[in-house]
Amino acid sequence: MTTENGGHGQNAGRDDRDDSFHVFDTTLRDGAQREGINLTVADKLAIARYLDDFGVGFIEGGWPGANPRDTEFFARAREEIAFKNAQLVAFGATRRAGGSAAEDPQVKALLESGAPVITLVAKSHDRHVELALRTTLEENLEMVRDTVSHLRSQGRRVFVDCEHFFDGYKANPTYAKDVVRTAHEAGADVVILCDTNGGMLPAQVQAVVATVLADTGARLGIHAQDDTGCAVANTLAAVDAGATHVQCTANGYGERVGNANLFPVVAALELKYGKTVLPEGALAEMTRISHAIAEVVNLTPSTHQPYVGVSAFAHKAGLHASAIKVDPDLYQHIDPERVGNTMRMLVSDMAGRASIELKGKELGVDLGGDRALVARVVERVKERELKGYTYEAADASFELLLREEVEGRPRRYYRTESWRAIVEDRPDGTHANEATVKLWAKGERIVATAEGNGPVNALDRAMRIALERIHPQLAQVELTDYKVRILEGRHGTESTTRVLVTSSDGDGEWRTVGVGTNVIAASWQAMEDAYTYGLLRAGVEPAE
Amino acid sequence: MTTENGGHGQNAGRDDRDDSFHVFDTTLRDGAQREGINLTVADKLAIARYLDDFGVGFIEGGWPGANPRDTEFFARAREEIAFKNAQLVAFGATRRAGGSAAEDPQVKALLESGAPVITLVAKSHDRHVELALRTTLEENLEMVRDTVSHLRSQGRRVFVDCEHFFDGYKANPTYAKDVVRTAHEAGADVVILCDTNGGMLPAQVQAVVATVLADTGARLGIHAQDDTGCAVANTLAAVDAGATHVQCTANGYGERVGNANLFPVVAALELKYGKTVLPEGALAEMTRISHAIAEVVNLTPSTHQPYVGVSAFAHKAGLHASAIKVDPDLYQHIDPERVGNTMRMLVSDMAGRASIELKGKELGVDLGGDRALVARVVERVKERELKGYTYEAADASFELLLREEVEGRPRRYYRTESWRAIVEDRPDGTHANEATVKLWAKGERIVATAEGNGPVNALDRAMRIALERIHPQLAQVELTDYKVRILEGRHGTESTTRVLVTSSDGDGEWRTVGVGTNVIAASWQAMEDAYTYGLLRAGVEPAE
Repeated sequence: MTTENGGHGQNAGRDDRDDSFHVFDTTLRDGAQREGINLTVADKLAIARYLDDFGVGFIEGGWPGANPRDTEFFARAREEIAFKNAQLVAFGATRRAGGSAAEDPQVKALLESGAPVITLVAKSHDRHVELALRTTLEENLEMVRDTVSHLRSQGRRVFVDCEHFFDGYKANPTYAKDVVRTAHEAGADVVILCDTNGGMLPAQVQAVVATVLADTGARLGIHAQDDTGCAVANTLAAVDAGATHVQCTANGYGERVGNANLFPVVAALELKYGKTVLPEGALAEMTRISHAIAEVVNLTPSTHQPYVGVSAFAHKAGLHASAIKVDPDLYQHIDPERVGNTMRMLVSDMAGRASIELKGKELGVDLGGDRALVARVVERVKERELKGYTYEAADASFELLLREEVEGRPRRYYRTESWRAIVEDRPDGTHANEATVKLWAKGERIVATAEGNGPVNALDRAMRIALERIHPQLAQVELTDYKVRILEGRHGTESTTRVLVTSSDGDGEWRTVGVGTNVIAASWQAMEDAYTYGLLRAGVEPAE
Repeated sequence: MTTENGGHGQNAGRDDRDDSFHVFDTTLRDGAQREGINLTVADKLAIARYLDDFGVGFIEGGWPGANPRDTEFFARAREEIAFKNAQLVAFGATRRAGGSAAEDPQVKALLESGAPVITLVAKSHDRHVELALRTTLEENLEMVRDTVSHLRSQGRRVFVDCEHFFDGYKANPTYAKDVVRTAHEAGADVVILCDTNGGMLPAQVQAVVATVLADTGARLGIHAQDDTGCAVANTLAAVDAGATHVQCTANGYGERVGNANLFPVVAALELKYGKTVLPEGALAEMTRISHAIAEVVNLTPSTHQPYVGVSAFAHKAGLHASAIKVDPDLYQHIDPERVGNTMRMLVSDMAGRASIELKGKELGVDLGGDRALVARVVERVKERELKGYTYEAADASFELLLREEVEGRPRRYYRTESWRAIVEDRPDGTHANEATVKLWAKGERIVATAEGNGPVNALDRAMRIALERIHPQLAQVELTDYKVRILEGRHGTESTTRVLVTSSDGDGEWRTVGVGTNVIAASWQAMEDAYTYGLLRAGVEPAE
C-alpha cells in the first residue's frame, strides 16, 4: 500500500501547479444527491473528463467502499483517464468511535481507491456528535486526529469537511473551532467549513470564516448549499474572508435545492476578482461544458442559469434593444464570448425596428439598407403577435416570414387542398385517431390517410406518407418537442391556442409556431412551417 | 385629474399601513421580460390577485401608454380587484429631453392609469445619458426634477428607479449621486439603485449603498438582476447597508437570467432577519402562490427553487435519511411548513399520507380515523401521478377521487357510450369542427351533435345539448380556463398531454385534470370531471 502514492499516472505533471487557490468539484459525490440524478460509472467517467477539460483542480469522485459503483469508478478512472488538470479525490468519514484508523475497513477502502487526495467528513456540531454519532466530544476529536494522521502517514493529502460547521459554531463555537484546530494540527491541508443545511447568508458566512481563520490559523475552504438561494454569494463571501478553497458542483446540482454552482463561482473569480483559477482558454468552454454535463446526467440545461443559460444574454425589451444597437455593453455585464455564450435578440411585441434588424443579421439576412422592408417586417410581426403568434421562441417561423418579405413570395414545397382529423372514443373504451391530407406537389394531387396515437400525430404521419416520394429529405426531419399554450384563458374552450413545435434533422434544431382557435389547426400550421424550414435547410428548391 | 387620487377604491384602508419597509413586486413589468413569458391581461389580473393575497406592498403592473395591454390592465385592475394589501404601481420614464412633464404624453398616460404610485425610470450613468438619451447631463437632472415634481403635484407617490446605477457610480460617482439627490429633493419617496445588467456582487452592493445613503440622505431601494447568480444576496446586502425597499419578481422571472426572486428574499427577511414584511399567515402560502403563478405564466415550477421547490426539502442521502430519523432539524435550515412546503423522503412520492390527510381535512372529508382508506388514496394518487396527473392544481378531480374511495363508487350523473370529434380544413380555407356524443342518463340513450370553433369546444357544446334536459343545472357551469401541458417533451407529437380545466358556476371556481397521449381525449376527461363536480356542487343526486 505504501508504494501507491507514487503510482498515480493520472496526476503526473501536477506537482508544479500553483496550489494557492483550489477549485474543488464535487458533482460526482454531492451533486449526485440531486433528486432525479442517477449516475452510472460511465456517466461519472464522462463527467470527470469534462471537469478535467474545464480545469478544476480537484474532482471528488465518490465514497469508495461505501458504494460499489464508486469503488469501480476509482478503479476505472485511474486506468482510463489521463487527467490534464485535476487530481482525483476520494470522500469518506473519520474512523468509527472506539476503533483505530489503521484497522477501520472504511478508511482502508479510501486508501485502496488509490486517490492521491482524501476528503474526510467530520462532525463539528456538538449536538450531532451526541445524537448522530453517539459518542463523546473528546472521542470525536480523537477520531479526526487519528484518521488524518493515518492517511497522512500513508502519503495522502487530506482535506477535512466540517459538516454542519456554521450551525455548530453558533451552538458551541469553542468546540467547532477545536475540530478545525485538531484537523489542522493532525496534518489536514485544508479544513472546509460546510453549510450543510444551506441556511446561511453571506454576511454571516464572512464573519464566521474571518473569525475561525484568525483563531485557528488553518487553511480554510467553503462548502455551501443553496437553500437560501445564496450559495454562490456565500462561497464568494468566504473567499472575501480568506478562504482559499471552494467546493462546488456543475450546474449547482445537489441535494434539496442544490450546491454552490461551479460556473458562476468560477466566472466571478476569473472575471470579477481577476483571479486566475482555470487554465488559459478554459472559461470560454464553460457554456459547452455546462450543457454537456447536463446531457450526461439527462437533465435539460437550465435556460436561465447565470453565464451559461441560453437566455443568459437574450434581450427582449424594445427599450434595451435600441440601446444595445448603440452599444452592446449597455445591457451586458460581460462579453458573452468570454464564457462561450452568445447574445440573442428576441423578437417580441416589445421589440421595434432595432431588434428586427439585429435578428436579421443573426440569420444572415442583411436588412440594414432597406428601411421599407424592415418596416413591412415590423408591421407583419406586430400584426401576427396581436393574433397570438410569438417569434421569440420560433426562429424558424420568423426566418420564413423574413424570407417571404425579402424574396417577395412564400417558400412553398407543396400546396394543401384540405385535411381532416377524426378522434373517436369507442364504446369499448379504445380510441381511434385518423387523419387524411389532400395536397398538390409537383403538379400531382396526393391523398394520404394515416392513424396515430392522437389527431396531431395522425396528421404528421399522413403528411409524411403524402410527401415522402416527392421530398424524401423529409425523412430526416423529426418533430422532437411540442408545446401548447392557451392564450386567452377567460373564454373556456373557445380560447386561442398557440402551438410551438421543435424539429430536428440530426444536424440542428428549429422551432416553429402556429395559432388558431383550434388546437389541431394551430398544430398543422406549426408543422407546415417545420416541414418547409426542414426542406429549406436541406437546400431543396421550392416546388410550387 | 386632480381628484383621481382620492378615488382609488382598491387602496382603501391602506393608509394605516407600516411604510417603514417596502416589498415591491415587479413580476408584471420586469418579470414579463423573461424569455417565454407572454402575459395576457387576464394573466396579469390573475397574478396581481395572487401577489395581493401574498401581501406584497406594491405591485408594478406595467407601462401604461407604452403598451395597450398594460393600459387595459390598469383600467380593469381598478374595476375588478379589491386589493387587500397591495398598492398598484405604474411604471414609466422621465419626460423627454427639452419638453415639459405636464405636456409629455407618456407622463400623461401614467397619470391616466389612475395608479396611486408611479415608478419613474431615470438614467444615472453619464455614458447612457449621452449615448442612449442623447442629451446633456444637466438636462437629464432637469428631466428627473420636472417629472417627479409634476407627478407629486398631481397627488401621486413617486419612486425613482436609477437605471444602471452601479455601473454609473463606478464611472462617475458624483453624477450618479446627483441623480439620487435630485430625485429625492424633487419629492421622490424612494430612490432605487438598479443593477440593470446584473453584474454586481454582494460586497460591492453593500459598500455602494452605504456610501450613497450617507452622502445623499435619500431613502434607498434595491433592484437586482441575477446575472452573477447573486440577486437574492445582493438584495439582502443592500438591506444590510440600509435600503428599506426591495424590488423582486415571483419565481425570479425576468430578462436574461432573471430578477431577484421574491420568495427567498421575503423568506430571508422574515425567517433570518426576523422582520415582519408580510401579513400574518402569508408566508405559509408561499409555496402555493409560487406554483400558482408558474401555472398562470405556463412555466413548469422550478423543482429546485429555494424554499418553494418540490425538492427544496427532499432528502435522498442515506447518511442524511438516518440522521433525519433522529432529528428532522439536522438537515433542514427551517421547518418547511413555515413556507407551506413539506419534507419529503425520496423513493416515496410527492403524495405522502400526511398531505392526503391534510387535503382531506381541507375538503371537509375526515380521513384521520381510517388508515386503510388513506393508504388506498395514497396508492391511487401515486399511480395516477406516475401517469402524469397532478392534483396540486386540480382540487376538484382530487375531491372526486377521494369521494369515490370514501363512498365506495364514483359519482356518476350519466354514462358515456362513445364520442367523436372531426376537424376539417376545407379547400376554401375554412374549418369545420363537429362533435357527436352518445350517452345514457336516467335510463335514456341520448345522441347529440354540435359544431364549435375547435374540437374541444364542439364536444363541450354537444355534451351540454345532450344533458341540458336531464341536468339543467349544467347551464350554470362554464369552462373559464383551459391549459395544456405536454409532459414528455422528447417524443414530438407522441408526447403525453395533460389538460387542466377551470370551471365556474358563478359562486366559485374549480379545477379538473385529464391526461392522455391524445389532447382531445385528455380534454374530455377533464371536462367530464368538471361537469360531475359542477353537478355535485349543485347538490344533484347521482343518476347512474
